[in-house]
Amino acid sequence: MSETKKTNIILFSGDYDKAMAAYIIANGAAAYDHEVTIFHTFWGLNALRKDEPVPLKKGLLEKLFAKMMPRGANKLGLSKMNFAGFGPKMIKEVIKKHNAVPLPQLIEMAQEQEIKLVACMMTMDLLGLQKEELLEGIEFAGVAAYLADAEDGRVNMFI
Amino acid sequence: MSETKKTNIILFSGDYDKAMAAYIIANGAAAYDHEVTIFHTFWGLNALRKDEPVPLKKGLLEKLFAKMMPRGANKLGLSKMNFAGFGPKMIKEVIKKHNAVPLPQLIEMAQEQEIKLVACMMTMDLLGLQKEELLEGIEFAGVAAYLADAEDGRVNMFI
Amino acid sequence: MSETKKTNIILFSGDYDKAMAAYIIANGAAAYDHEVTIFHTFWGLNALRKDEPVPLKKGLLEKLFAKMMPRGANKLGLSKMNFAGFGPKMIKEVIKKHNAVPLPQLIEMAQEQEIKLVACMMTMDLLGLQKEELLEGIEFAGVAAYLADAEDGRVNMFI
Repeated sequence: MSETKKTNIILFSGDYDKAMAAYIIANGAAAYDHEVTIFHTFWGLNALRKDEPVPLKKGLLEKLFAKMMPRGANKLGLSKMNFAGFGPKMIKEVIKKHNAVPLPQLIEMAQEQEIKLVACMMTMDLLGLQKEELLEGIEFAGVAAYLADAEDGRVNMFI
Repeated sequence: MSETKKTNIILFSGDYDKAMAAYIIANGAAAYDHEVTIFHTFWGLNALRKDEPVPLKKGLLEKLFAKMMPRGANKLGLSKMNFAGFGPKMIKEVIKKHNAVPLPQLIEMAQEQEIKLVACMMTMDLLGLQKEELLEGIEFAGVAAYLADAEDGRVNMFI
Repeated sequence: MSETKKTNIILFSGDYDKAMAAYIIANGAAAYDHEVTIFHTFWGLNALRKDEPVPLKKGLLEKLFAKMMPRGANKLGLSKMNFAGFGPKMIKEVIKKHNAVPLPQLIEMAQEQEIKLVACMMTMDLLGLQKEELLEGIEFAGVAAYLADAEDGRVNMFI
């Protein structure tokens, strides 16, 4: 009846194209009055990184991960035809040409639409990411919180 | 009760093995009287391309994408062990040997079972694909149409 | 009301990180009293292989697949930053450091929690895997059995 519909997306992937798909679905669902959560885990956390480095104390492995992983939504590669960074350039070119919305703006839109952006604490820990390195307005939670949302979800997906 | 069950699959991936999984689930669900939709977006659109080139006016980037992306279901690569095309040959060999159904026939079966095959208009635009290049009998829609189907779906997945 | 909630995961991927995500969600859902099934298909079957070779009669293609695919959960690669096996070493290092649970133990936990681990018979056939090569306590089924579970599922996902 007048029950709120929920959409819950786990964003595991750190690819520009997959993250774009996730945020397009999420923004669409929010426009249709769904309560939407994107739960970022593993490489999906990289979409939430600030684009400039944040000076923090880290162990060696954590420094390595931080260096090797893309810093923020605009730096992500493609799941296909990445060609050492040429593929993402092409995609951004066609996004501009066709007046589509690039990923960083899709994330801003999601925040304006009050989509809940969650970062998985366990995998932040594994990859050595700290709260200060992620965008403002992110929530931090674990798999239990995700499941509590998802078990009443109408649209659940793992991307 | 007698309500029709719905299965909604987003096929984002352009890999032979993943597309095969999507179409096997879809055909199975249709056999169990589900109303089934496969929404093809990004690289998943390549599964719907006709296998011969269609002469069309295109911009430079669109020509490049058209050239680099596989033309039709039979040309897709594997998500694992692709080995520059040797993996797909092996898979097709074992499919034949074990009397399994290759992808192009799975797509035909889907059309015979009246599974709704949808192509995402926004990503067709981005990748420069035009309606004439895709198989007959495809519908064209956007994320809103997908969400309308998915919010009543019993089985929703992103592949 | 007191109806049992169901979580159904298709594990298609044979990547260590994705399998880890699948098993963390599954173990979490079981802890919250969901009835949980993980349906392993294609490369996901490799997570269920015993780690020592099992002497069996096989055709040439089947021997090739058996050789090239990772033998068991501990041998899986990463979906990102695999670096010819260096990535998985790093991940296992940080798992140990942060007292997280490595994949083989996550699978054991799943079995202790009575999560139903299913191997897809059709793709076992394609990849030439035989029952004797997989862990004890696995069930064998096809897409029909998966759909029967999934159509009543609260949380369904394809990983």
